[in-house]
Amino acid sequence: CVVSSCFRAGEEEQQAQSKKALKKQQKEAEKAAKKAEKQAKLVSDFAKDRYGICPMVQSQQKLDRALVRVQDLTPEKAEQQIWVRARIHTSRAKGKQCFLVLRHQQFTVQALLAVGDRASKQMVKFAANLTKESIIDVEAVVKKVEQKIESCSQQDVELHVERIFVISQSEARLPLQLEDAVRPEGEGDEEGRATVNQDTRLDNRVIDLRTTTSQAIFRLQSGVCQLFRDTLINKGFVEIQTPKIISAASEGGANVFTVSYFKTSAYLAQSPQLYKQMCICADFDKVFCVGPVFRAEDSNTHRHLTEFVGLDIEMAFNYHYHEVIDSITDTMVQIFKGLRDRLQTEIQTVNKQYPSEPFKFLEPTLRLEYKEAVAMLKAAGVEMGDEEDLSTPNEKLLGRLVKEKYDTDFYVLDKYPLAVRPFYTMPDPNNPKYSNSYDMFMRGEEILSGAQRIHDAQLLTERAMHHSIDLEKIKAYIDSFRYGAPPHAGGGIGLERVTMLYLGLHNVRQTSMFPRDPKRLTP
Amino acid sequence: CVVSSCFRAGEEEQQAQSKKALKKQQKEAEKAAKKAEKQAKLVSDFAKDRYGICPMVQSQQKLDRALVRVQDLTPEKAEQQIWVRARIHTSRAKGKQCFLVLRHQQFTVQALLAVGDRASKQMVKFAANLTKESIIDVEAVVKKVEQKIESCSQQDVELHVERIFVISQSEARLPLQLEDAVRPEGEGDEEGRATVNQDTRLDNRVIDLRTTTSQAIFRLQSGVCQLFRDTLINKGFVEIQTPKIISAASEGGANVFTVSYFKTSAYLAQSPQLYKQMCICADFDKVFCVGPVFRAEDSNTHRHLTEFVGLDIEMAFNYHYHEVIDSITDTMVQIFKGLRDRLQTEIQTVNKQYPSEPFKFLEPTLRLEYKEAVAMLKAAGVEMGDEEDLSTPNEKLLGRLVKEKYDTDFYVLDKYPLAVRPFYTMPDPNNPKYSNSYDMFMRGEEILSGAQRIHDAQLLTERAMHHSIDLEKIKAYIDSFRYGAPPHAGGGIGLERVTMLYLGLHNVRQTSMFPRDPKRLTP
Repeated sequence: CVVSSCFRAGEEEQQAQSKKALKKQQKEAEKAAKKAEKQAKLVSDFAKDRYGICPMVQSQQKLDRALVRVQDLTPEKAEQQIWVRARIHTSRAKGKQCFLVLRHQQFTVQALLAVGDRASKQMVKFAANLTKESIIDVEAVVKKVEQKIESCSQQDVELHVERIFVISQSEARLPLQLEDAVRPEGEGDEEGRATVNQDTRLDNRVIDLRTTTSQAIFRLQSGVCQLFRDTLINKGFVEIQTPKIISAASEGGANVFTVSYFKTSAYLAQSPQLYKQMCICADFDKVFCVGPVFRAEDSNTHRHLTEFVGLDIEMAFNYHYHEVIDSITDTMVQIFKGLRDRLQTEIQTVNKQYPSEPFKFLEPTLRLEYKEAVAMLKAAGVEMGDEEDLSTPNEKLLGRLVKEKYDTDFYVLDKYPLAVRPFYTMPDPNNPKYSNSYDMFMRGEEILSGAQRIHDAQLLTERAMHHSIDLEKIKAYIDSFRYGAPPHAGGGIGLERVTMLYLGLHNVRQTSMFPRDPKRLTP
Repeated sequence: CVVSSCFRAGEEEQQAQSKKALKKQQKEAEKAAKKAEKQAKLVSDFAKDRYGICPMVQSQQKLDRALVRVQDLTPEKAEQQIWVRARIHTSRAKGKQCFLVLRHQQFTVQALLAVGDRASKQMVKFAANLTKESIIDVEAVVKKVEQKIESCSQQDVELHVERIFVISQSEARLPLQLEDAVRPEGEGDEEGRATVNQDTRLDNRVIDLRTTTSQAIFRLQSGVCQLFRDTLINKGFVEIQTPKIISAASEGGANVFTVSYFKTSAYLAQSPQLYKQMCICADFDKVFCVGPVFRAEDSNTHRHLTEFVGLDIEMAFNYHYHEVIDSITDTMVQIFKGLRDRLQTEIQTVNKQYPSEPFKFLEPTLRLEYKEAVAMLKAAGVEMGDEEDLSTPNEKLLGRLVKEKYDTDFYVLDKYPLAVRPFYTMPDPNNPKYSNSYDMFMRGEEILSGAQRIHDAQLLTERAMHHSIDLEKIKAYIDSFRYGAPPHAGGGIGLERVTMLYLGLHNVRQTSMFPRDPKRLTP
């Protein structure tokens, strides 16, 4: 019957439960025994105060202890007793010894624990069992080594560890291995070793960013920003901050993100274009800004992001927009030189994983006219109209042709057809089909788009109407030019592209810390 | 009948038309006569090639002509014949003479045209009729003056104009007068002269930004950014770029703007908090970023904007978060000193319109505990709980009390009650009701909020749950701490507030070029 089956079921359950309880008791007893044994060992462990897991650093005390950086561990420090904080990069037990490689940023050093006066068996075992990527404090004596340690950045010294404490433990299972993540392209496949695909990298960006390659890429990118700004500040430019939430889509309505703004809606700025021009109308003369720009383009390519960092320039000139081109190309040249001279280590680090030719540039910068480029492409067999825009493959081909002919990875293409440029572009005074506009290229890919802008409200109105732009929506912009406006030109540079192309990388997601594209919004 | 009335109407119309035609002919004849007369005058005008309206500068030619800046017009240039480009600040005809004040940025110089050898009657009349704010090129001889010209920045020289050409004409009717816009507060009312209210200024920002006060404010702001970055780069910090479009509201769901993101929605980052912390977990150690932050707060106060510029810092430390406080306060002190030493002219320019006491600070920076602040407020008669947050009036009162007692406009308030801080704030190890968090104040208003952050995934999870935060939404953030994370702290500074409070201004809209608040999205 149902009841008796219930009962039996109950009875079985009861039996099962008492068995479980018994098992639990047994387990607990075993656990207690083990603990006692461990305790006993620990008590008998003369080195027990020399290792362990620190309580979470909660600023309990101000410890007067200097920490030496891994990169500063050189033979000059030989025989010194020092403290170092670093991650466990690798750990390998070998008999009574444990070899660790300690890592801080792009620097590594070998560390050794050996059973003896200063370390017990238990201590060496403790060290050997620590999880990779855990952060530890070690007290050690710096020792010169006879044979260079090829696998570490600090090749002339090793650390003889006397104390070792865990500051922050890593989980044992890492979502990706750092050694896989820095393996040169292709090498993994050939030798059957793992490499890490891009999505795994980006999903676990915090670990991927710890590789020597990532550390180098983003230090170089920080350098690009710094060189950009320092050069411009030396040239008398003023840094401005422009709003990202705007009331009207600046360059036509397409490809713009919409934002809910209290009871109305607004847009995310596709560029600081209109604002930097207003600053010119407001007499700031030479301005720059560094900030995010947003493009709601559903482009899933190696070089498009929906959010990237714009390095923007706008400048009043006297008589000819080439004054501005000269300022911008000189700025780029200062960036290239600065990177080459100050960040050579970083460049070489990236090259180890992603080999590329050194970046070449001329002084003064090569400037070609659009017509000449079309002629070069036609001579190379490309069929295209004179006033047709350059396709991406044609841009790349042109880059190769220019490199062959002029031996430069950087050049300016001037005098684009008017039809392919935004409404505010100044027409060429000598040929109404062309315009006073230009792009700049690195390794055959566009990194800057710019032009002389129309500074006359009437002509601007005509051109906006020609492009079917709603005048009401750009009223504030057009009105800016009604009260005297100096002739001016400028351009916008894509930071991630500059970093990518300078280093000869192949995907802009490698040079964006947390890239955004139509399919990626996290982390 | 209808037909005849139609006819008559037609006849009348014809008559009207022929009258019109006649009138038109007459008018045209008059016009032609006038033109001929003008032409005749022009032909008879010996100076006719010395003035006029230039065609729009369209980069027709590369003119080899140096332009001297107004600020460089000093007695050393006396008797030199030079070209200057500037705006017409004021223009006044007086008999056969015309006095102009020419302006470029914050600099002004007097210019004189007089009927004589080099200028005709017509030329002087032309100059006298030019609209204010038009941009002109003048060729002139620099002349020393006997009596200082008090009304100009260049007091020791004037220009004797020999040629004058308009580069860009301003409309005659300006939406605001620059002299009204720089009038010191209160002065306008007393003497019955106009001042310009804030909305008029902001609606016509391009003109308002031309005032000496605005030029000085935004040059100083550019200086704040530069000093901030230079100081941090010297301290070994790396600049990072963090995404502004994010998949989950970082600090709870309130006050966040929603963005349409292809087929889904996203949010605008309220701070780079989570990303700069991830950079710490990724071993960058010391990072900063400068960029927009977004707050969908419906606050219409003197110090709230919906979009402002955050100067953000995050830093790994060794043992105590006061190491980070010391770095931040030293950075602030370097900014204060840099502004004082490098931008004194700008400070004094702003003070002319908005008088304020010089900004005072101590070295080392004063650090008070929250408990002490509450005690000071209670002693001053304020009723408040020990763990209650500071209201804005209490913050200001505290600022006055601190100024009286310690004579400083800058201080740190440390150890806030845990309950009033975000979930990721590290609790005080000695008192669970308090936390390792701090605010910094300038002239009694908060400019930075910061803390030691929880770097342990487990404690972070507990605290997030305590704050009822959806763990699924901050998974990527919490996971960042699972693979070893250094103890760290940081803070975010509001750029516009720093500029406002350093200069002793009273509205953050004065220090935002194109401010955004719940009611303003343009220009």
